[in-house]
Amino acid sequence: MEIYFDNCATTVVTEAVKNVVIQTMTQDYGNPSSMHMKGVRAEKYVTEAKQNIADILKVDAREIYFTSGGTESNNMAIIGAAEANKRKGNKIITTKIEHASVSAPMKYLEKQGFEVVFLPVDRYGVVSMEDLKKEMTEDTILVSVMYVNNEVGTIEPVEEIGKYIKSVNPHVVYHVDAIQAFGKMKIYPRHGNIDLLTVSGHKIHGPKGTGFIYIRKNTKLNAIVLGGGQQNGMRSGTENVPGIAGIAQAAKDCYDNLDENVAIMTKLKDYLIDKLTPMEGVVVNSQKGKAGAPHIVSAGFRGVKSEVLLHALEEKGIYISAGSACSSNKPALSETLKAMKIDKQLLDSTVRFSFCKFNTIEEIDYAVEQLNILLPMLRKYVRR
Amino acid sequence: MEIYFDNCATTVVTEAVKNVVIQTMTQDYGNPSSMHMKGVRAEKYVTEAKQNIADILKVDAREIYFTSGGTESNNMAIIGAAEANKRKGNKIITTKIEHASVSAPMKYLEKQGFEVVFLPVDRYGVVSMEDLKKEMTEDTILVSVMYVNNEVGTIEPVEEIGKYIKSVNPHVVYHVDAIQAFGKMKIYPRHGNIDLLTVSGHKIHGPKGTGFIYIRKNTKLNAIVLGGGQQNGMRSGTENVPGIAGIAQAAKDCYDNLDENVAIMTKLKDYLIDKLTPMEGVVVNSQKGKAGAPHIVSAGFRGVKSEVLLHALEEKGIYISAGSACSSNKPALSETLKAMKIDKQLLDSTVRFSFCKFNTIEEIDYAVEQLNILLPMLRKYVRR
Repeated sequence: MEIYFDNCATTVVTEAVKNVVIQTMTQDYGNPSSMHMKGVRAEKYVTEAKQNIADILKVDAREIYFTSGGTESNNMAIIGAAEANKRKGNKIITTKIEHASVSAPMKYLEKQGFEVVFLPVDRYGVVSMEDLKKEMTEDTILVSVMYVNNEVGTIEPVEEIGKYIKSVNPHVVYHVDAIQAFGKMKIYPRHGNIDLLTVSGHKIHGPKGTGFIYIRKNTKLNAIVLGGGQQNGMRSGTENVPGIAGIAQAAKDCYDNLDENVAIMTKLKDYLIDKLTPMEGVVVNSQKGKAGAPHIVSAGFRGVKSEVLLHALEEKGIYISAGSACSSNKPALSETLKAMKIDKQLLDSTVRFSFCKFNTIEEIDYAVEQLNILLPMLRKYVRR
Repeated sequence: MEIYFDNCATTVVTEAVKNVVIQTMTQDYGNPSSMHMKGVRAEKYVTEAKQNIADILKVDAREIYFTSGGTESNNMAIIGAAEANKRKGNKIITTKIEHASVSAPMKYLEKQGFEVVFLPVDRYGVVSMEDLKKEMTEDTILVSVMYVNNEVGTIEPVEEIGKYIKSVNPHVVYHVDAIQAFGKMKIYPRHGNIDLLTVSGHKIHGPKGTGFIYIRKNTKLNAIVLGGGQQNGMRSGTENVPGIAGIAQAAKDCYDNLDENVAIMTKLKDYLIDKLTPMEGVVVNSQKGKAGAPHIVSAGFRGVKSEVLLHALEEKGIYISAGSACSSNKPALSETLKAMKIDKQLLDSTVRFSFCKFNTIEEIDYAVEQLNILLPMLRKYVRR
């Protein structure tokens, strides 16, 4: 028995993705920069991948650039935009609940002399529009807000933010980290005035080591990886053709059946929330239905350390996450949960269940059954 | 008929590499940062990959870091070392024949105010020790020299350079781009006082989008991709486990049978050079036997543009390269060939044949046969 409820950490690669990866590793393995047929055939995979992703986002294919993953995409968006626009101003606005691949570059920029403002959030994790309005000034050069929070599934008002900030300063660069949103929501960068949108492949059943960044035409952005000038000079290095074909296939699979996939995940989420809410000493941080992302349930278990619960469930073949699990650090207290001001006693008693379309109601029934057996034991024997 | 003589541009992925990639994409697909068994199993691939590569280089496994490829590795080595050591001095030394993934970061650093010296080479492409000795000063913070030139196969005296520069300044950081050398030569960073050694996966039958950097213990180097703190904080982002397992498998396959593989490629190289040398209007730039890398033959064909020859051979199913073909730019005149001061008329008439262990003498016979038919025709009809 193996129940994988850690799809926010990473996902299994699907058959269709696997097949295109094998094809491009063993048959159409050329270098897209090579001028002969073997190169041309490889280049075609890259061109088609760009077009497929552009079609999903309703943007121009020339606005899609492939990277080595979500972290590189976010680094490129933030460091690349700050350095390209530093003559226009010094202020950057982000939130207190960003992923480390956003917050770490922000801290780097602070050391370089930029002023970085971290906006607070409410108890559901929603960023404060009021604080944004106070902080947004004409000399702000970059605003970066995540679409869906990776720990609790909060959906941020990214379109509203985009409209507001561009009304104050049309030249501000607006970055949205869509790593946990892409594949689970309809995303149209143009609707939200989004200039930079970043995505990771391995969160959507695509290959690890893949990602992309949407760069709206005319956005001032510096490249951060320099070399042979591939991808119009914005991201040098031989294109990872199997990875690029793989992430495009994964994206297509998500969006060809989006409503159906989202319905499956939302049903799982709501079902688990309904089971957890009445349980004693359990606090659910995620919201049901369309109020939150379809695939994430964060919950605190009073009197049980998250790591202990994780390992107890692991022994039953159930894999979940403590903390965001996209970080290699041993679980420090979550900045997101702190910013949401959840009960301090629950800070290190909170875990995340995250789903994909392959999970089932039966798996949740089994997990809940195990929780009902384990929780009283853990609370009894594992004193805090 | 398909004859692939462009193995310096990229290589086919082998069966063993494909198998481990599939296994880690579809079964052992966990995130190495996850605390449950699925994560632990994934992490084991990364740990073993580091150890396998460290064994080959005779270094400590903790000195190996995985990246998204040769370009990122070179960017990290050069920009990361320059920024980490800028308080010690301002001077950087490299050569005129480096790959774009080295020369582009060097040009970036020049704009940042560093003094970058590009050393000349002799007619075989060997960097001048005399010029190095003139330029190497106590305030030099970084020296970067490639191990094997990607266009002509020249082997640089990297150990001799390492010994010399450390005798002048033990604190200088020494980087060697080993992208075309790894898998074809015995490489021991400690013998050459090498602090940073960079390698790409897809040049050695590994997956695209993979690479590594050896960072000698205590070397001052800044990370250039920031986030969750994976790989000891030196390279954030979820580890590309299939890619990492794949590059390690490819490395192992190269070094388990190194002598045999090198013998195959050297035989092919020497055979082609012997066939080309007596041909009228042909100038071979590469050296036979151990004097050059085993897998590269660069040759100029007087009176025929390289691009025309490339496409004529392509029609016969033979894939070669004009220029270095690791660059996406349309073939500009090669900086390497210019630095070697080859006959100006041959600058845009030079092509590269590059081999792997899967090529055969029969393939070369066929290519030479086609050259003998094509060259008189091309010279007759395609006027310059």
